[in-house]
Amino acid sequence: MAELTHIDAQGNARMVEVGEKVVTSRMARAEGMVWMSEVAQGLLESGPKGNVLIIAQVAGIQAAKKTGDLIPLCHPLPLDGVEVRLTRVAGGVRIEAVVRCTGKTGVEMEALTAVSVAGLTVYDMLKAVDKTMRIEGVRLLEKSGGRSGHFQAGETK
Amino acid sequence: MAELTHIDAQGNARMVEVGEKVVTSRMARAEGMVWMSEVAQGLLESGPKGNVLIIAQVAGIQAAKKTGDLIPLCHPLPLDGVEVRLTRVAGGVRIEAVVRCTGKTGVEMEALTAVSVAGLTVYDMLKAVDKTMRIEGVRLLEKSGGRSGHFQAGETK
Amino acid sequence: MAELTHIDAQGNARMVEVGEKVVTSRMARAEGMVWMSEVAQGLLESGPKGNVLIIAQVAGIQAAKKTGDLIPLCHPLPLDGVEVRLTRVAGGVRIEAVVRCTGKTGVEMEALTAVSVAGLTVYDMLKAVDKTMRIEGVRLLEKSGGRSGHFQAGETK
Amino acid sequence: MAELTHIDAQGNARMVEVGEKVVTSRMARAEGMVWMSEVAQGLLESGPKGNVLIIAQVAGIQAAKKTGDLIPLCHPLPLDGVEVRLTRVAGGVRIEAVVRCTGKTGVEMEALTAVSVAGLTVYDMLKAVDKTMRIEGVRLLEKSGGRSGHFQAGETK
Amino acid sequence: MAELTHIDAQGNARMVEVGEKVVTSRMARAEGMVWMSEVAQGLLESGPKGNVLIIAQVAGIQAAKKTGDLIPLCHPLPLDGVEVRLTRVAGGVRIEAVVRCTGKTGVEMEALTAVSVAGLTVYDMLKAVDKTMRIEGVRLLEKSGGRSGHFQAGETK
Amino acid sequence: MAELTHIDAQGNARMVEVGEKVVTSRMARAEGMVWMSEVAQGLLESGPKGNVLIIAQVAGIQAAKKTGDLIPLCHPLPLDGVEVRLTRVAGGVRIEAVVRCTGKTGVEMEALTAVSVAGLTVYDMLKAVDKTMRIEGVRLLEKSGGRSGHFQAGETK
Repeated sequence: MAELTHIDAQGNARMVEVGEKVVTSRMARAEGMVWMSEVAQGLLESGPKGNVLIIAQVAGIQAAKKTGDLIPLCHPLPLDGVEVRLTRVAGGVRIEAVVRCTGKTGVEMEALTAVSVAGLTVYDMLKAVDKTMRIEGVRLLEKSGGRSGHFQAGETK
Repeated sequence: MAELTHIDAQGNARMVEVGEKVVTSRMARAEGMVWMSEVAQGLLESGPKGNVLIIAQVAGIQAAKKTGDLIPLCHPLPLDGVEVRLTRVAGGVRIEAVVRCTGKTGVEMEALTAVSVAGLTVYDMLKAVDKTMRIEGVRLLEKSGGRSGHFQAGETK
Repeated sequence: MAELTHIDAQGNARMVEVGEKVVTSRMARAEGMVWMSEVAQGLLESGPKGNVLIIAQVAGIQAAKKTGDLIPLCHPLPLDGVEVRLTRVAGGVRIEAVVRCTGKTGVEMEALTAVSVAGLTVYDMLKAVDKTMRIEGVRLLEKSGGRSGHFQAGETK
Repeated sequence: MAELTHIDAQGNARMVEVGEKVVTSRMARAEGMVWMSEVAQGLLESGPKGNVLIIAQVAGIQAAKKTGDLIPLCHPLPLDGVEVRLTRVAGGVRIEAVVRCTGKTGVEMEALTAVSVAGLTVYDMLKAVDKTMRIEGVRLLEKSGGRSGHFQAGETK
Repeated sequence: MAELTHIDAQGNARMVEVGEKVVTSRMARAEGMVWMSEVAQGLLESGPKGNVLIIAQVAGIQAAKKTGDLIPLCHPLPLDGVEVRLTRVAGGVRIEAVVRCTGKTGVEMEALTAVSVAGLTVYDMLKAVDKTMRIEGVRLLEKSGGRSGHFQAGETK
Repeated sequence: MAELTHIDAQGNARMVEVGEKVVTSRMARAEGMVWMSEVAQGLLESGPKGNVLIIAQVAGIQAAKKTGDLIPLCHPLPLDGVEVRLTRVAGGVRIEAVVRCTGKTGVEMEALTAVSVAGLTVYDMLKAVDKTMRIEGVRLLEKSGGRSGHFQAGETK
């Protein structure tokens, strides 16, 4: 039967013991979208407002480092690298994060956290002109390293 | 023309000066969904696994308090109260957060952050059985207090 | 029947809404002990080792400020003042913390957290010579301000 | 003569250099008690209030990860696993924490911090009905790995 | 005789009690410089590298919010606004920070911390091409609000 | 042409991928000065005020551990050791920090951050008697380990 690694047989929460797991090179890639009004999109177009995307990018990178503090049962991890890209797409902004680590546990939570916080930061900076923005499609795209092997998400969400 | 409060005319980022704003009672309500496989949903059904939702709830409450640390240009706020509810719905889990503050700035980012981190925590605890979960529909539902008046989101997303 | 403020009727955890509560001047005083071997006590006696108590004092003050981050359902509070005193007593060290705040909720958790972390810091600095140290008697001594009135602990533990 | 590793000959505090120490598998186990009134104990008995122990458990796990931030001279450590158990005993709650790490320094401070913060969280959630609770007997039970060998605490406190 | 507010007559460190102080509108302005090689300066000139200054600006704003966590005896403060400006000058970069708060204590430490961390971030981003950079002239320029009145630094350092 | 490791060809900020870099023993040594009035210096001379330097020392050590949180694109690092020394010199206080790590990236930012925050703490504790203090000459003195080889700063600043 399927089991939750973070909950033991008695229902106790735990930070899973990974001492015996092999140290391997791990990578995770996640994405998410911020959908917004045309007015809000217009503010991202040109000039100094371009800074919105840079600030959200920095917020996403920093959030990846805080994952172990935000998600109760995540291991604190010494990350090897974090990249967060925000791209203008029709209807809003697409965010993609890639996180790498040499360690015993996967880094998908770090990539998903980076995407989420970058999205929240975009929301924060544009909320004066659009309160109806939505963060959508936050999901894992790819994951490699570790015992569970390579994971690649399907094309359509 | 529409303006971004967090970016001044020269393109400089800033934490907006709110010293002159009136202290009022403020509330924000946000929601989001975590869609997941039937196997993952099954693990939420009964017994000790119910703890997944409590742990995500606590993570959401704590995240609301960290908003000023996560979102670069957010003000640090002494919150009056935070409630996070996770409900089983067809296809997954619905998260709703209500944040209250007596202060000079709104608390929508706190409510959205609580929802996002609660959702990420659900993901973390179920990811061993489903890597294709998605966090969707993170949005502001309602906001009151402050100069911009009451905001109520439309029914359909 | 007695009720838990942090858990609602449905069993949901919450950071209690205090928006309607009156802002008053609040104070809490807590104490705790670290019992240790004679060798460990001897190291606190004289010379540069006296620094142990100063460092533990600073750690306690800083911990009071982190209470809202450590204790999941505590409100983040803008503290007015924190004092932590460590005193040599027969058998070890006595720690007393006084925390003050002008706000809507009490500061007993801040005082108890300051005492606990100061005690842990004493342990950390002396553990090379005594692994059998114990932190004992961490309790609230006094509390004033707020609706529940003045609380004074009994003399003997 | 006995020496304090965290204080050098001139009385300077330092985070001890461990670069030359061997990386080994380390474990520490600690315990503590929260003594409380019968009314407070009654609230832990049944129904949704059982959540008190789960929330304290999560707070303890998270605190273990913050040890390097709370205790000034502790090394920041990438922990392998953390378990915190809260058990109803006559007179209150017993807390036990087990922390594991593959590294150069012991993890007793992480285990003791997990116990202390779990205890403080129990206090926070029950303080509305009992202000006379006490946290007692916070101590190291067992420690393995590293140069100093295995430590096992005596039976009686 | 001159006295240190953070150290009492017995030499104890304390977070000064400000409960009785009047809540006023407070402002502090600080500056600092990062001197660097011509090669390093050249990288700030044009194109995407301009991002260095934006990232340092964001880091400075965020650091102002962390002051109470970094400086042991500082009060945690709900800031009203933070502005950090980085300007290219002959020889490097000048940083100026303005912090505002409605509260009981001054915000000079927040302004000085913002300047310092923005400077460190500039260093971090350029260190691959110049390890001899120096952060100089970090000082308070102006301070208003509170009992001690208005302070204005002299022209030359 | 010189390149910034933290900014890629498209101007994106990133936490540089270091997964392929060799783990070596790394050290960095940095210094900085706090210049102050004679009155302020006098307060450091004798008696309990000596605590100012100890508290600043502890703040510097703790800040080294927070570097990855303060500097946006820094890697979080498990440090091996941190030493911070504050010395009375003519005109004020000299601060020197030595940080060691076994890892893939250098620790110069940790050493510079320790120096800066120790300096800010000195400022905080003496600011009641001297608002004209300045933090000067924050710079890297020495760096070893890693591909870029040994760096030693020149004698005069």
